[in-house]
Amino acid sequence: MSEPKPKPPPPADIPVPKAVVSRLSLYLRELQHLVRDGHQRTSSSQLGRLLGFSDAQVRKDLAYFGHFGHPGIGYRCDDLIKAIRKILGTDRDWPVAMVGTGNLGRALLGYKGFSHQGFRIVAAFDIDPQRIGATIEGVRVFHLDRLVEVAAENKIKLGMIAVPAPAAQAVADRLVAAGIEGIVNFAPVTISLPDNVRHVGVDLAIELEQLSFSVVNRLNNNGSATE
Amino acid sequence: MSEPKPKPPPPADIPVPKAVVSRLSLYLRELQHLVRDGHQRTSSSQLGRLLGFSDAQVRKDLAYFGHFGHPGIGYRCDDLIKAIRKILGTDRDWPVAMVGTGNLGRALLGYKGFSHQGFRIVAAFDIDPQRIGATIEGVRVFHLDRLVEVAAENKIKLGMIAVPAPAAQAVADRLVAAGIEGIVNFAPVTISLPDNVRHVGVDLAIELEQLSFSVVNRLNNNGSATE
Repeated sequence: MSEPKPKPPPPADIPVPKAVVSRLSLYLRELQHLVRDGHQRTSSSQLGRLLGFSDAQVRKDLAYFGHFGHPGIGYRCDDLIKAIRKILGTDRDWPVAMVGTGNLGRALLGYKGFSHQGFRIVAAFDIDPQRIGATIEGVRVFHLDRLVEVAAENKIKLGMIAVPAPAAQAVADRLVAAGIEGIVNFAPVTISLPDNVRHVGVDLAIELEQLSFSVVNRLNNNGSATE
Repeated sequence: MSEPKPKPPPPADIPVPKAVVSRLSLYLRELQHLVRDGHQRTSSSQLGRLLGFSDAQVRKDLAYFGHFGHPGIGYRCDDLIKAIRKILGTDRDWPVAMVGTGNLGRALLGYKGFSHQGFRIVAAFDIDPQRIGATIEGVRVFHLDRLVEVAAENKIKLGMIAVPAPAAQAVADRLVAAGIEGIVNFAPVTISLPDNVRHVGVDLAIELEQLSFSVVNRLNNNGSATE
């Protein structure tokens, strides 16, 4: 009758707010910086301070996914990095396809930040005959017509779109037909996809807008943004 | 004694959460799409549906900045676009400097999304003699040594950094010395700046991580992300 109740397991079926998932990426980056700088342990207050969040926010975010760290001791950086990568799914290999090898596509092929986090661009696609067969930043460029075949061979599940806006929807449709399950769209246009395909649109102008808000509101000395 | 209390003004001195400011950019994009598609009016429920937020969320976010729209009628798209641009500070002209004209810099110089939102890249900077004096996407490339002079001439207050990671901090310092008040850093490295200079770091790998989370959790059929 008086058996102690077991601790409840992490609530796997409670939807996690997108903002929390975004912050996991930020925690991961800070933890990686801490390790690079020779730190082995950290705390919710240190992580919060580095990112401008409260320590309570850090603990609450992590609590969505289980119990990490130890009261009075904090977190082992390596353990927490491992745990967050598992949550984000970046503890596995993600071969990625890049469609479009113009300036933006080339810039993304050379972007070091992807491979640091476990994303490996294994094939690029274009329709310009001049570009087919080339190797850019170590990645071979195939004709878009070979997408299905190359994606299957390389078990590619994620794709990035860096083509001109008018071509983006057609490319997205072809990625879906090739079995791609997640798409990052860098073309400045909204694309429609079936519900079972996840996608993120990257609108680079949003960063500038957020910045102009900060600058304007610093100048006005009111309405400063907080977390 | 019984005079009706005046409606309180919008709370200009309450800090606005960053997430709210981010969503303003998303509302602005959807409003711009609606206008482009011929719509004149919208509602909090339509805006919410388009973005996957609740109508209450939309109303709550906008309420930080004042009273918009009319009960039962909704919002006039043009009016709300104008109001949001004023809040974000993009109702004015923002001449922007781009430092770095490698692949990423070139891609950003050609990115149509910036000028659509009122950001005009007026000068690019590099240190490679081969690139100085060139015109890329209509933008002249100057030697970085001319930053102070060119920024003053063009009243440049915002800058973008697209140089290799090891050079990013030195470039940021020079932007600050040239009177730049806001910086978007695309180099995959954290930069330190004085408190009076706002900056945003763009980590392109975060989008991929968020995507892998969605794909993994769709596969596991649990922990799906919500707003």
